[in-house]
Amino acid sequence: MVKKTRSVRRFYESTPVLEQDIIDLIDLARLAPSGRNLQSLKYFYSNTKTLNDKIFPTLSWAGYLENWSGPEEGERPAAYILVLKDNKIKGNDTIDHGFAAQNILLGANEKGWGTCVLKSFDEVELSKTLNIPGHLEILLAIALGKPAENAKLEKVENGDIKYWRDEKGVMRVPKRSLNEIILD
Amino acid sequence: MVKKTRSVRRFYESTPVLEQDIIDLIDLARLAPSGRNLQSLKYFYSNTKTLNDKIFPTLSWAGYLENWSGPEEGERPAAYILVLKDNKIKGNDTIDHGFAAQNILLGANEKGWGTCVLKSFDEVELSKTLNIPGHLEILLAIALGKPAENAKLEKVENGDIKYWRDEKGVMRVPKRSLNEIILD
Repeated sequence: MVKKTRSVRRFYESTPVLEQDIIDLIDLARLAPSGRNLQSLKYFYSNTKTLNDKIFPTLSWAGYLENWSGPEEGERPAAYILVLKDNKIKGNDTIDHGFAAQNILLGANEKGWGTCVLKSFDEVELSKTLNIPGHLEILLAIALGKPAENAKLEKVENGDIKYWRDEKGVMRVPKRSLNEIILD
Repeated sequence: MVKKTRSVRRFYESTPVLEQDIIDLIDLARLAPSGRNLQSLKYFYSNTKTLNDKIFPTLSWAGYLENWSGPEEGERPAAYILVLKDNKIKGNDTIDHGFAAQNILLGANEKGWGTCVLKSFDEVELSKTLNIPGHLEILLAIALGKPAENAKLEKVENGDIKYWRDEKGVMRVPKRSLNEIILD
């Protein structure tokens, strides 16, 4: 499951992601570990064209792909889950959103949905357009939809970790080897 | 699986965690998403008494449990995986360790191992005692072993998120409701 859960950046936009699926995924995030059990994360979701069209223009996609600034109309995400931090809940939880997001990604994959975590977005604009209250900080946007592309794992050669899209449109994603990441 | 993967803080210390299991778990972490695919995480593991005895005294356990400063001899973790950040690899990846750790926790649970993520430890002392090179920063310690305690999810009442241990030694862990964490 972990191996199959790869970032997807092109979707069948017209295939809707059901609200209940999204809520199930947020429920998985809810049960993720939380530092000092503070659970300061909140979630906003969108699976309608109106809301999706507000979210999409604020996002930046796939920095390493030249000549591709993001999915075209028709292949955009059919849904989003935003992961927010509630700053009214005090505490230094700098890892919870990673635990929570990974539960969402794995759960989505199990349900057949592709995902991509986006950390690069215009937070001010996104907050404003969605009327997010000021004490909530948007940490991540998770794009969801029926996958319209595949990915393949590659070895890292000469330290180059940049992913690329091959002539058939398959994403090639280099991963460092176990030898490189385990200390003696 | 997510529901069953709860923090365990007491283990059957004499049950060894096999090296191959640990390597399998690090392999799951290896395949976790990585911001800009930088993969700046490294891993150190221990499953021997000699190393475990160096790690244990540097850790702090379960802040909310009064009159309990951590597991006694015989119920301590049989293994550890430390998640480190390689500061030679530049990039602002503040979430990768969460993705990676969650893969380890879920994978460990599937293999029957209990886990606890520890973020509170004496990093200077831990680095020194394990001869960790200076460019590697210890982000997390994940304790592993055969679980010697159970946990039960509870509702959060009156905003109190503190976990407790009941008279039978079961950890009771309050989780906020979906209603509380999903924005309208």
